[in-house]
Amino acid sequence: MQTVTFAPSPDQYAFTFGGVDPVLKINPGTAMQLWCQDAYCGRISSLHDKASECLVPTELNPQTGPFYVNGAEAGDTLAIHIVDLTPAHTQGASALIPYFGGLTSTPQNPTLQPALDERTYIYEYDAQTDTVRYAAQGSDLVLDLPANPMLGTVGVAPAAREVRTSLVPDAFGGNMDTPQMRAGTTCFLSVNVDGALFSLGDGHYRQGEGESCGTAVEGAMHVTVIVDLIKGGGGAWPRLETDDALCVIGSGRPLEDAWRISQVDMVGWLGDLYGLDPIDAYQLVAQIGQVPIANVVDTNFSAVTKIDKSLLPEVSAYGGMHQRMREAARTLGTITY
Amino acid sequence: MQTVTFAPSPDQYAFTFGGVDPVLKINPGTAMQLWCQDAYCGRISSLHDKASECLVPTELNPQTGPFYVNGAEAGDTLAIHIVDLTPAHTQGASALIPYFGGLTSTPQNPTLQPALDERTYIYEYDAQTDTVRYAAQGSDLVLDLPANPMLGTVGVAPAAREVRTSLVPDAFGGNMDTPQMRAGTTCFLSVNVDGALFSLGDGHYRQGEGESCGTAVEGAMHVTVIVDLIKGGGGAWPRLETDDALCVIGSGRPLEDAWRISQVDMVGWLGDLYGLDPIDAYQLVAQIGQVPIANVVDTNFSAVTKIDKSLLPEVSAYGGMHQRMREAARTLGTITY
Amino acid sequence: MQTVTFAPSPDQYAFTFGGVDPVLKINPGTAMQLWCQDAYCGRISSLHDKASECLVPTELNPQTGPFYVNGAEAGDTLAIHIVDLTPAHTQGASALIPYFGGLTSTPQNPTLQPALDERTYIYEYDAQTDTVRYAAQGSDLVLDLPANPMLGTVGVAPAAREVRTSLVPDAFGGNMDTPQMRAGTTCFLSVNVDGALFSLGDGHYRQGEGESCGTAVEGAMHVTVIVDLIKGGGGAWPRLETDDALCVIGSGRPLEDAWRISQVDMVGWLGDLYGLDPIDAYQLVAQIGQVPIANVVDTNFSAVTKIDKSLLPEVSAYGGMHQRMREAARTLGTITY
Amino acid sequence: MQTVTFAPSPDQYAFTFGGVDPVLKINPGTAMQLWCQDAYCGRISSLHDKASECLVPTELNPQTGPFYVNGAEAGDTLAIHIVDLTPAHTQGASALIPYFGGLTSTPQNPTLQPALDERTYIYEYDAQTDTVRYAAQGSDLVLDLPANPMLGTVGVAPAAREVRTSLVPDAFGGNMDTPQMRAGTTCFLSVNVDGALFSLGDGHYRQGEGESCGTAVEGAMHVTVIVDLIKGGGGAWPRLETDDALCVIGSGRPLEDAWRISQVDMVGWLGDLYGLDPIDAYQLVAQIGQVPIANVVDTNFSAVTKIDKSLLPEVSAYGGMHQRMREAARTLGTITY
Repeated sequence: MQTVTFAPSPDQYAFTFGGVDPVLKINPGTAMQLWCQDAYCGRISSLHDKASECLVPTELNPQTGPFYVNGAEAGDTLAIHIVDLTPAHTQGASALIPYFGGLTSTPQNPTLQPALDERTYIYEYDAQTDTVRYAAQGSDLVLDLPANPMLGTVGVAPAAREVRTSLVPDAFGGNMDTPQMRAGTTCFLSVNVDGALFSLGDGHYRQGEGESCGTAVEGAMHVTVIVDLIKGGGGAWPRLETDDALCVIGSGRPLEDAWRISQVDMVGWLGDLYGLDPIDAYQLVAQIGQVPIANVVDTNFSAVTKIDKSLLPEVSAYGGMHQRMREAARTLGTITY
Repeated sequence: MQTVTFAPSPDQYAFTFGGVDPVLKINPGTAMQLWCQDAYCGRISSLHDKASECLVPTELNPQTGPFYVNGAEAGDTLAIHIVDLTPAHTQGASALIPYFGGLTSTPQNPTLQPALDERTYIYEYDAQTDTVRYAAQGSDLVLDLPANPMLGTVGVAPAAREVRTSLVPDAFGGNMDTPQMRAGTTCFLSVNVDGALFSLGDGHYRQGEGESCGTAVEGAMHVTVIVDLIKGGGGAWPRLETDDALCVIGSGRPLEDAWRISQVDMVGWLGDLYGLDPIDAYQLVAQIGQVPIANVVDTNFSAVTKIDKSLLPEVSAYGGMHQRMREAARTLGTITY
Repeated sequence: MQTVTFAPSPDQYAFTFGGVDPVLKINPGTAMQLWCQDAYCGRISSLHDKASECLVPTELNPQTGPFYVNGAEAGDTLAIHIVDLTPAHTQGASALIPYFGGLTSTPQNPTLQPALDERTYIYEYDAQTDTVRYAAQGSDLVLDLPANPMLGTVGVAPAAREVRTSLVPDAFGGNMDTPQMRAGTTCFLSVNVDGALFSLGDGHYRQGEGESCGTAVEGAMHVTVIVDLIKGGGGAWPRLETDDALCVIGSGRPLEDAWRISQVDMVGWLGDLYGLDPIDAYQLVAQIGQVPIANVVDTNFSAVTKIDKSLLPEVSAYGGMHQRMREAARTLGTITY
Repeated sequence: MQTVTFAPSPDQYAFTFGGVDPVLKINPGTAMQLWCQDAYCGRISSLHDKASECLVPTELNPQTGPFYVNGAEAGDTLAIHIVDLTPAHTQGASALIPYFGGLTSTPQNPTLQPALDERTYIYEYDAQTDTVRYAAQGSDLVLDLPANPMLGTVGVAPAAREVRTSLVPDAFGGNMDTPQMRAGTTCFLSVNVDGALFSLGDGHYRQGEGESCGTAVEGAMHVTVIVDLIKGGGGAWPRLETDDALCVIGSGRPLEDAWRISQVDMVGWLGDLYGLDPIDAYQLVAQIGQVPIANVVDTNFSAVTKIDKSLLPEVSAYGGMHQRMREAARTLGTITY
């Protein structure tokens, strides 16, 4: 397997999906050793770094990429298998940003109320125990929480000639912020333009579902992925496969519409995989679907419909792509899933 | 422990929260052996029973109760520990009801489109294997799915002199339709009127999160609960405690507002339990909260914020009520959680 | 025409739709001279009366009624023609109530932000000029605004055995808060229970569309209505007819669903009136409908679809009921519309 | 006054805001005689032209522009005064497009229901009577409706390096679809990039509020505008001024959030114009604001908050720009407002 390595310099950060020239061209079947800067562009590293003072609004959520995948065309499906996510620093940070988050008014749903007080949290990351340390600031509660490394953002160039900021999730992927995007996961994205032009970033050392305060335990990340291409199969919303589950991620507003998108796409996917008519697939999703919410804070919200594969007969989605990528991942060295 | 037994006759079914005289008065600390009719009032029992022909719109989701709890007053908190849920029949049913469900227009979000075709599913329940059998109708897929008995509906009489149908979830509980409402769970509900007047029903042999087609595997249920009373503590939204988790269930529309309700109440609950200020509690919920959606089909939607207790220091919510009820449950015989 | 007069004493205020015994029985075709207390139960009369200190949460939006209409049955349609609305006081009041209104978080869409500062406005009402006087408090702007007397609340007992607070709008009418509910308007409400049990209240001397701060220029009102009954025709959402317009008021959340309800009902109404198929009626509503929003602050939001009658051939809705009631109104004395 | 004339050839149509090179550079204070193709790119001209067969999904809502305004920089405000809108054809067309519109499920809020039947309406435009003719297809109702020419789309290049399709409305303007965008209106847009890069299009010979079926009476339009520049004043949402009214247009989902945006911006605008503190301005908007909904069909919904200027003391918004442009318009010849 071909392997390429890439870590962007600050002038190579991409802040959009689409609209940026590729940093690299790769062939399908390539393994990539990447590094992602954190969502703050590294500007928050101590309790005293307040978001409103440190952050540069036009430099948020830098992406590593975009990468041009040779042979990819609109209508195809890109497969990105996450082999490994390893925190690149010994600390991550979560910042309460004024008028950003799920339990405050925001520019998208404004009120006349004052902003919440800013507060920055630094989480020490202990690689030995694989934990991050939460420390309350108004009292003395300290908790060591298991790290749960994930990527907030994986996406391709959008359709319809659009260029979108890396802060928004949509049909092209983007800032979906789901904890399901972790090592061992294969992410399938519909290709909209020649070369697909995918990028990724927004490493989280840990995040709850919903990401309610607006930021996870954000930190730079070492990322190992294998990238492959499926001719055709496009048109679907972002889909995930792990050894245990199938997921679809819908994004939109209000949250029930993000959910509807993920449900309808899953009804179609199960229909395709098992030869079910839409009503039978709807019935099945209703009884076995799980719905772990992804984010309720971004400019679109993201909802996940998740199916436990153990409840279903064995089947090969996308021609067995996940299984093949998983096996290829083994050849890269120690993997933990 | 005092034990009472009650199974309503059809003329005793309650179709509202509030507005109905109690069928029984009980003391705090009572164990109850109850039986609940299914949400269809038993009117769907074969594949040929179409919802639009069989169901009586004014007789849906019959409740067992209401029960008057001696000493309960507005501002108190009712604790209902679910000791056991055992399917009362050897089959359950899920019906696709015209203009009802998550992936169709409904009277609350109408369109001009025709209704989906009706289809009724009968799930055989096998008590030996504790499974329900899904059988596709447009193809030959058959699946034996683990049963996951739960109660769709648990509630008290509403505040503000209101009487609400048993089809709606709200601050008083009601038709929340969360799979978290299973054996081993203690449900805390704020009392609004003298005696609390709680009732329960809507047994599901299995349900996915979201209940997207509108109905679960509905079936009559044998229900064992222990009921107790906490003086004070009222005002919160419905809360759940299990050995493993704390949950708050918010209900409203759009779905993000149901989520916000559950999040804000959880921020307050963790603040109370651990002495956290609101910003610290918000930060903690953001990093450890799970959000398994309950229902996106009822006249209010319901979202759950769930906290894994193993991530937190041990603590006694409501003076250790869950732990005490759990121990009391053991004295009732074999329990499975 | 039979005429009855009724002004409730404080112990006769109704705070719900449904759940209250009628104060009076009337025959169809009766004229009524009524008086409504303001939404605060008269507890705010000076700039120093803060809502959080003066208001009693269980005593908001008192209704005058309910009235039992002889012969009314479920499935019928009640017609209430507003002959006259005359402010009963020389001042009205608008109060900024903590966590209530459109530009603040509320218990239905909570955040962690502090409440807006309370502020009470007293509007002098000048009957000679028919104006209310706005006076800024942070500066010296004073404006005399035309009075626009309207009723925030008109409704009947709900369906499905429910009892709802007078603060909520829904299919039964209730707290719709639309400025369209003014003298000269005939309001059609579907009857759900024997006698219809209608009531009205919540006089506004003036209100903008949306009622964004949560309260209008609230004041006690002298109300003259004529009440009549149409056998059949039920099932529709609240409809209004004036000399100039047809309106349907939908209520729900999110606001687009309230809008959809009003649009779909209007498509049906125009279809019935003009023999249009649903697609033709949809097309027509799309090109001629107006959408003056009613409220975005109550527990359901209300949207109005309004059709200018001058664009359409003359037609008799409900058998010409509006025209007949309008003529009957003339026999009651001077009317201003 | 400098006057330029421009009518795009088909290869000059712009289908995005941002991402396209300017077709022309102009100085502030220029009058422009423009022509806009209709939203279908002229592909629907008879009852037999079905949207699903005729339309090219990547060629919808072509814009005339973009125009580079010399001297415009991010943070400035562009003023576009609509002098005249004259239908360029003798007919307009409204098409029911599958899965597009307000009373159908769409890709943003999908269901499993079948699409509504397609139907295309041709409206004859009679310049003498200034009417468009509605003709039902399922019956024989024919109506001559007053034309109400407007532009669905006016916008500038977005912020944050984005490129957006011409189908979406947002802070940069775009496809807001409000009937308020008519001759006599001055539209103020915040500039995000050098030159502002504004474009316009989507002529409607008539449209109702909400544009519920998804398309207005669409037709090519002769457009006369005067364009000017205000240094500074940026950051606001799209604002309109006419001789009679001030408007703000908010766009987002759900609809209440679009409304909140328009209300909060209007609170700020009135605060600036009249020296009101936010609570006083909120109170005033609540009592005098009108809310004529713009669109509930595009990928963002648009709500208008409108203030009748006759209720307020005279004031000069943006240094009297509207008044000056209106006077300049007179020098261009006969105007009708």
